[in-house]
Amino acid sequence: MAEAGQGVHLTDEQRIDWLRLIRSQNVGPRTFRALINHFGGARAALEALPALARRGGSGGSPRIYSREEAERELDAAENLGAVFVAVGEADYPRRLQTIDDAPPLLAVRGNLAALALPGVAVVGSRNASAAGLKITQRLARELGEAGFATVSGLARGIDAAAHRASLESGTVAVLAGGLDRLYPPEHAELVDAILPAGVVVSEMPFGWEPRARDFPRRNRLISGLSLGVVIVEAAKRSGSLITARLALEQGREVFAVPGSPLDPRAEGTNGLLKQGATPVTEAADIISVLQPIIGTELPAREPEPAGEPGEYVEPAADERSRIISLLSPVPISMDDLVRLSKTSPRVVRIVLLELEIAGRLERHGGGLVSLL
Amino acid sequence: MAEAGQGVHLTDEQRIDWLRLIRSQNVGPRTFRALINHFGGARAALEALPALARRGGSGGSPRIYSREEAERELDAAENLGAVFVAVGEADYPRRLQTIDDAPPLLAVRGNLAALALPGVAVVGSRNASAAGLKITQRLARELGEAGFATVSGLARGIDAAAHRASLESGTVAVLAGGLDRLYPPEHAELVDAILPAGVVVSEMPFGWEPRARDFPRRNRLISGLSLGVVIVEAAKRSGSLITARLALEQGREVFAVPGSPLDPRAEGTNGLLKQGATPVTEAADIISVLQPIIGTELPAREPEPAGEPGEYVEPAADERSRIISLLSPVPISMDDLVRLSKTSPRVVRIVLLELEIAGRLERHGGGLVSLL
Repeated sequence: MAEAGQGVHLTDEQRIDWLRLIRSQNVGPRTFRALINHFGGARAALEALPALARRGGSGGSPRIYSREEAERELDAAENLGAVFVAVGEADYPRRLQTIDDAPPLLAVRGNLAALALPGVAVVGSRNASAAGLKITQRLARELGEAGFATVSGLARGIDAAAHRASLESGTVAVLAGGLDRLYPPEHAELVDAILPAGVVVSEMPFGWEPRARDFPRRNRLISGLSLGVVIVEAAKRSGSLITARLALEQGREVFAVPGSPLDPRAEGTNGLLKQGATPVTEAADIISVLQPIIGTELPAREPEPAGEPGEYVEPAADERSRIISLLSPVPISMDDLVRLSKTSPRVVRIVLLELEIAGRLERHGGGLVSLL
Repeated sequence: MAEAGQGVHLTDEQRIDWLRLIRSQNVGPRTFRALINHFGGARAALEALPALARRGGSGGSPRIYSREEAERELDAAENLGAVFVAVGEADYPRRLQTIDDAPPLLAVRGNLAALALPGVAVVGSRNASAAGLKITQRLARELGEAGFATVSGLARGIDAAAHRASLESGTVAVLAGGLDRLYPPEHAELVDAILPAGVVVSEMPFGWEPRARDFPRRNRLISGLSLGVVIVEAAKRSGSLITARLALEQGREVFAVPGSPLDPRAEGTNGLLKQGATPVTEAADIISVLQPIIGTELPAREPEPAGEPGEYVEPAADERSRIISLLSPVPISMDDLVRLSKTSPRVVRIVLLELEIAGRLERHGGGLVSLL
């Protein structure tokens, strides 16, 4: 991104524009990148949003996050001692930057040094067994002693045990709601204990109450911040298994603690072992795998599309209709769209942006898109 | 072997000679094969034993199992309703035949049809947990329903549970002592329950009380009789882990039931998982791996040495001393011995047989030999 190469530092004005853009309706991390790439900056993208939505067939104008709202959110962050770190800035976690849908801005509270440590996610059931909690404690403590930050979701059970056992070495709690909306609320004291050496982070707006669907979305950050993910206890179809799947998609190592086949809390972890996860009974099992890959080349994010950023040139009506007629709820690649529509990549990109801002398009991993 | 091609049937006289030869001093399964290959039959080998021992440097004559002893053992077998099945005979378990040190004669009591079923070894701790016993039962019952015979060691705990759960479908109990020397003795009733559909087998002489060192030796038969070995519960350094190692050496599949890292009875099985064993929580995990390999080509036993069987031609004294000077407690291959001693394979083989019968040589897998 023009504004977001490695080692950049946003101006205050740019940070406000970024915050407005990512908080505007129908703009997610992937759309944010496409917009910045296309228009060369957040300000130009913001200005183009109404026209994009109109061309994309939206009934009304998209809700654009106002300058006042952005300033209020920055004030709220400041009051809580939090900062917004942007993709490409020095404090932004390097490993998170490699995922395809990395949040453009991450709200961070606490000791930023924790984000520079190599991370290991330790996650599992909320209704954990005493044995599971004990194993978690032991793993997290030893991982901390070995120089890793534990990354988890601040949930009851395994998550909280992982954070508690690594308060001194540094731990990263990733929230599904805003930084000022802790869930569960009784973990406020735990957060206070995390902050001296660790951080609490979120991509969601201040004031955002987490909904059920925000947790899977949050889980991609837990794995994205980590070299590997350890699942300690997990029932079938639990959130921890989503984190494991996301970790695999992101090229992260997946570890699972074995358990008795008669223990329902081990169904998920044993299932992961069957799928090839590395078995873990002690921290050394994790460290021996991750130590050698600390600092190695990160998996490349999908390449940025070629082409000059520029102003919004409206595509011809027949080009737009050809492209739209190729789209369906079945995901299709950008390359196929360009080839089949016989238009240019630039035209395809702008039509997709229009549909997206109009709320009619979904972006998937691997450059695939589908109609909603 | 001349007397033991596929589909042969020994005469009564030959069976007596085989029994005498395998029961004679310093003759194990590998030496038995080498003798039969060299001399063309058990009778000729028996006649050569005293001269071999003398040339090999033994002080006295080796103890040769007498015709009377062999007949007494055949009578004991008959009284118990047992038979001796020879390598190459139709009733000899096909899979066992592929291991390098397959017993030339197997004493079998019960329903021989069980030896024709595809086998799965199910083994584990003697002091098993209630959970371990329950899992064993479930696995063994479902394996039986799927047409597999369970193979185990008649021990207390996991072994007995595996046999008990597959009495109707057929189970194979492999003893470390003679067929008439059950261990533990309280499993006599279990044996009676096994016999209608299953078998109890042993390579050891009737009347042989099992010693500690007979159990690891017996374990190679448990894995050798099976397509795969399932370890349900095993502490560190337990006998079940020996069975798992032997199974790997024999090219068998190794399965392990996961358990909590806090449970010492799961240390062995979790360790196997770390080494790449397939995790098992239900019989389907085993069946899906083994079903496709039932009836497939068996791994080839190491090829029989070339050359005509014949009478005992004594090697020249300098040839013998050159070969002996190359031997040490470090295992060396037959090929290296031939090359370095500048003699023929036939001469090397006869000198090794001499040393072996004199009790001075040990044969290992892969055609390696070492001085004792």
